[in-house]
Amino acid sequence: MTPPKSPPQHPHPEPPENLAGLGREGLLELPAPVTERQVAHDGTGRVLLSFSPSGRDVRVPPGVTVFDAASWNGIAIDSTCGGHGTCKKCHIQVLGGSVPVSRLDTRAFTPDQLRAGWRLACLAQATNDLSVEVPPLVTRPKAATVGVGRQVILRPAVQKRYVELAEPSLADQRTDLVRLLDAVDDLELTADLHALRRLPGVLRAADFKVTAVVVDDALVDVEAGDTTERMFGLAVDLGTTTVVATLLDLTTGTPVSVHSMLNKQQPFGADVITRISATMMDPTALDRLRQAATDTLTELVADVCRDGSVAPEEVYEVAIAGNATMVALLLGVDPEPIGVAPFIQASATWPTVRATEIGLSLHPGARVVLIPALGAYVGGDIVAGMLAAGMDRDKRTRLFIDVGTNCEIVLSDGETIVATAAPAGPAFEGGSIRCGMRAADGAIEVVRLGEDVTLQVIGDVAPLGLCGSGLVDAVAELVKVGLLDASGRFVTDEVAATLAPTLAPRLTSIGQERVFVLHSPTPEAPPQDCVYLSQRDVRELQFAKGAIATGWALLLEELGVAPRDVQQVLLAGSFGSYLSAASAVRIGLVPKLPVLRIVSAGNVAGEGAKMALLSSRERAGATALLEEVRYVELSDRSDFNDRFIDHLSFPG
Amino acid sequence: MTPPKSPPQHPHPEPPENLAGLGREGLLELPAPVTERQVAHDGTGRVLLSFSPSGRDVRVPPGVTVFDAASWNGIAIDSTCGGHGTCKKCHIQVLGGSVPVSRLDTRAFTPDQLRAGWRLACLAQATNDLSVEVPPLVTRPKAATVGVGRQVILRPAVQKRYVELAEPSLADQRTDLVRLLDAVDDLELTADLHALRRLPGVLRAADFKVTAVVVDDALVDVEAGDTTERMFGLAVDLGTTTVVATLLDLTTGTPVSVHSMLNKQQPFGADVITRISATMMDPTALDRLRQAATDTLTELVADVCRDGSVAPEEVYEVAIAGNATMVALLLGVDPEPIGVAPFIQASATWPTVRATEIGLSLHPGARVVLIPALGAYVGGDIVAGMLAAGMDRDKRTRLFIDVGTNCEIVLSDGETIVATAAPAGPAFEGGSIRCGMRAADGAIEVVRLGEDVTLQVIGDVAPLGLCGSGLVDAVAELVKVGLLDASGRFVTDEVAATLAPTLAPRLTSIGQERVFVLHSPTPEAPPQDCVYLSQRDVRELQFAKGAIATGWALLLEELGVAPRDVQQVLLAGSFGSYLSAASAVRIGLVPKLPVLRIVSAGNVAGEGAKMALLSSRERAGATALLEEVRYVELSDRSDFNDRFIDHLSFPG
Repeated sequence: MTPPKSPPQHPHPEPPENLAGLGREGLLELPAPVTERQVAHDGTGRVLLSFSPSGRDVRVPPGVTVFDAASWNGIAIDSTCGGHGTCKKCHIQVLGGSVPVSRLDTRAFTPDQLRAGWRLACLAQATNDLSVEVPPLVTRPKAATVGVGRQVILRPAVQKRYVELAEPSLADQRTDLVRLLDAVDDLELTADLHALRRLPGVLRAADFKVTAVVVDDALVDVEAGDTTERMFGLAVDLGTTTVVATLLDLTTGTPVSVHSMLNKQQPFGADVITRISATMMDPTALDRLRQAATDTLTELVADVCRDGSVAPEEVYEVAIAGNATMVALLLGVDPEPIGVAPFIQASATWPTVRATEIGLSLHPGARVVLIPALGAYVGGDIVAGMLAAGMDRDKRTRLFIDVGTNCEIVLSDGETIVATAAPAGPAFEGGSIRCGMRAADGAIEVVRLGEDVTLQVIGDVAPLGLCGSGLVDAVAELVKVGLLDASGRFVTDEVAATLAPTLAPRLTSIGQERVFVLHSPTPEAPPQDCVYLSQRDVRELQFAKGAIATGWALLLEELGVAPRDVQQVLLAGSFGSYLSAASAVRIGLVPKLPVLRIVSAGNVAGEGAKMALLSSRERAGATALLEEVRYVELSDRSDFNDRFIDHLSFPG
Repeated sequence: MTPPKSPPQHPHPEPPENLAGLGREGLLELPAPVTERQVAHDGTGRVLLSFSPSGRDVRVPPGVTVFDAASWNGIAIDSTCGGHGTCKKCHIQVLGGSVPVSRLDTRAFTPDQLRAGWRLACLAQATNDLSVEVPPLVTRPKAATVGVGRQVILRPAVQKRYVELAEPSLADQRTDLVRLLDAVDDLELTADLHALRRLPGVLRAADFKVTAVVVDDALVDVEAGDTTERMFGLAVDLGTTTVVATLLDLTTGTPVSVHSMLNKQQPFGADVITRISATMMDPTALDRLRQAATDTLTELVADVCRDGSVAPEEVYEVAIAGNATMVALLLGVDPEPIGVAPFIQASATWPTVRATEIGLSLHPGARVVLIPALGAYVGGDIVAGMLAAGMDRDKRTRLFIDVGTNCEIVLSDGETIVATAAPAGPAFEGGSIRCGMRAADGAIEVVRLGEDVTLQVIGDVAPLGLCGSGLVDAVAELVKVGLLDASGRFVTDEVAATLAPTLAPRLTSIGQERVFVLHSPTPEAPPQDCVYLSQRDVRELQFAKGAIATGWALLLEELGVAPRDVQQVLLAGSFGSYLSAASAVRIGLVPKLPVLRIVSAGNVAGEGAKMALLSSRERAGATALLEEVRYVELSDRSDFNDRFIDHLSFPG
């Protein structure tokens, strides 16, 4: 519950695993990208990409394209096709490390250029550490690729129009406003007071050559001269744990900078329920939680604007995706009825508010759009995720799982979409796990068991604990080698010595409880000083994955879909995206499917917020989803507990 | 230019002169009110009405009905017909002074009641000082009488709806907002953030029995229990000199309290041009002027709320009528282009703003509606006046003149409406007149010349100077007795001694300038220590009335109307309403017409603001006027100067 002394290096804005060749919706039907060799990988490990001239270092799963790695980290690379290998504009120069030459590279570049390392970024899979030079942008795209391979036509609610107006005279006494609006008469606008205050002065100082700034149907400002090149928006994934802000150039759809930080509400509790409880105990807590949310966003605004060399006054719109409680707390709306049966939100949709109304200092007329919620526990973050994943635009049978303390599950059979929420508990966030921790420096994120234990640790430091993906890996690997049986019980020392003699010595006890030691700081350290997995930890994970599996199983029944007919499983969210697909299948967190059908979808909530910024049409789509998706209440089901118990054990 | 040390007792909220039997449009066609005797009066003098239980003392011109005197001063008297003598509900008891028994009184009251002083207020003309007891209200009117006899059906933008909602359950998980809106589904509402913040708490604290507070199409609040009886609005006449605020009970349409005070912008200059100049000289002046306007309104809000026992949070809407410069300064919009050719406003129409945006502390969701302007010099005050006077609803040929530093003139022939502005200069406000002063205590407001000089002085104190109506009277009377000739020159002593021997000694000189002494503090006082009218003062008035007469003469030509065919002249505004009709005719300020056609219209700007509060339909009518009225630019007319010179002399 106590916040860390310094913000952890949360890997959140980095791209998810397993995206290569799968992440982009529709690509499965296309011929595979033409590369010299396809890289097989199991979702473990990371490669390091160093981009110049930005100086940004980025760690991504091997196999991700340089184009995607750059996009997800706010590094813009020229492209008009959005990374589909058709426009041949996404030139990069690989200065360190190697990227094979693809067939399209040979058409796009001369042999000399190829020898100098020039490649098309969208076909350049990063399989080893690379140094990449990105040329300055020369084209302005009409569309951007965001979400799970969604191509979004740029049609932001923010618009700028440069106009040169006739000066007034006794014969033409039109008011300043009418004079301006007559010049943009394809828009039906109402002027903000701020714009009216500036209008007379700016018009005359700029010789009636000005840029009208429009957000939706509001004239929010008038700027001297032609400022149409400068137009930014902020997409926010307002997570309970981590908040991610992406500054977007709305003229190109490209991210300018990305920052993430811990939600400053952490001192009030790690999850939504403890924060709601805080407001019930202490009448001042709601306002302090609201302020903490505002402070978090304020700091992120400063970070992304500084990094992007953008003035906060150039940010005209904010789109925020958060769960129902996070949104209520940000707005200062009492969340108490969300926390107690029958779980009622104040509202599922929110009016567009001024940034000033939530305490943000951006452009004085900046608007804040809140992605609407489907229900008290299927919030705007999930609606944004559905938007980013195109859940309503895909004919395939797809299962979307946002793994977390509260796990949201969405199933589409291409016709009907159903959704539910399953209470998974804090195991995935490292809560209730003995050596659990958040995905910060020192967290074991990957575990492989062979002759010995192989660990991958965030920050490449000595292991301090287990984060969620490490926990799932550890349990999955222990099941694989047989040290955990199907019921989730550690085997006896005798059975262990037979099945895995080199690992068996790590299976020991602390007091009465069996534990498996993952990392020992010194050869003689007692188990309680080690990073270990306990029997109770395994039970916690079983409860969590049991709740999730019950959720998707009931949704599959609801639509009459057999588990094997699911064509794609999207693992979403800041935690789910980092799960190993193989481990997720092994412990039964997802249906038993070929591992290639399990796709890490990344920060889909943030991607959905971006889409809402980039396109009014997509934004309307988010609201339309509220009508299209049927919510299935699990607590209504009389058979829930029986089904839950069925799903506690590990699949054979 | 220097403000007075203490706010003067401006008689502004008192009703205008000359209203008896004429003020109410349409009444001319009805049988005259049935009274024992019709009171003839020439618009001079005042009678005192003391109302109980309110304890309010009110000075009105003799002949005004008790009903109108009460209404104009915020004292509510029962009525469903709006004072037309048909509903017989406006009972009052006259406890001091006498009011004759009308024929309708004998039908409404028993002989005992009549002997005890019971009368119908709408037929009770105040011809002498009266003490009047007003019974508590028993009916709730559906309409209110405001403006120049306009009957306005109550349809305010502010609405309250009391609802009793079903409590939520797992089977009915509608959000709080949907639950509420479903209960008021005849309205299409968007919720303010403030309302959403309060919704969960108020619904549950009040057992889901709440009052929805609506302004236009916004849900601005939800209040526990049934608060439908408490619903107030504020109508503001934002004058350059004086600001008048009327607190209205929007459930009944009745004024709750009225206060007026000097505009706190006075230190920046007496008129709009000097205030615009201030913003051009000093970059901080605009913000200080804006703050001064806000401070003025803030003080008035405190005054009317205290007097009316209304909490500022119960005021949900404000309607403001002001000239273009006053509105711009209130909103913090740079007025400079209004002040210099080609005289351009930032906008003629204004968005509805939140009261908080202009610094007013009322209900947090309170809206401010600004009456739109026809042009830079025919502002929202005049549009409100046209609304109040029904300029677009009357088939008669009517001339509307708002007399002031800037004089606005509107002419309707029943089909077409034309308007113009004439620069009259500061004479009517007491500026540029040697002994000129504002209409405050000590100002001579009425002058009659016979054998001797008869003066009426505001506050019944010794005369200190001449206000505008006194100036017009003095000049008119001097013309009448022949001491001023038609060209505006004082006659020689010899001629004076012949024409008016008792007055002739008052015609003397200060230095080279001829003056007429109106009041001498002591018998031996030299003329410069007296209150006098100088030759130059007469010239100032001639210039002022010449500009105005040129304005209406050109408008009459524009519509092809002969002066004698004007059926009604409405003298409007805080100054115009106090002019003597006879004197106005005598000096040629208005066309030469029977004095009964010259009607003082009162504070029509404030009345128009009231109408906008009481009825969304009337409010829309104000905007419609912008399309209906054609503005005639005088400075375009090549013949303006010739016509002006023609109108300088006094009519024969």
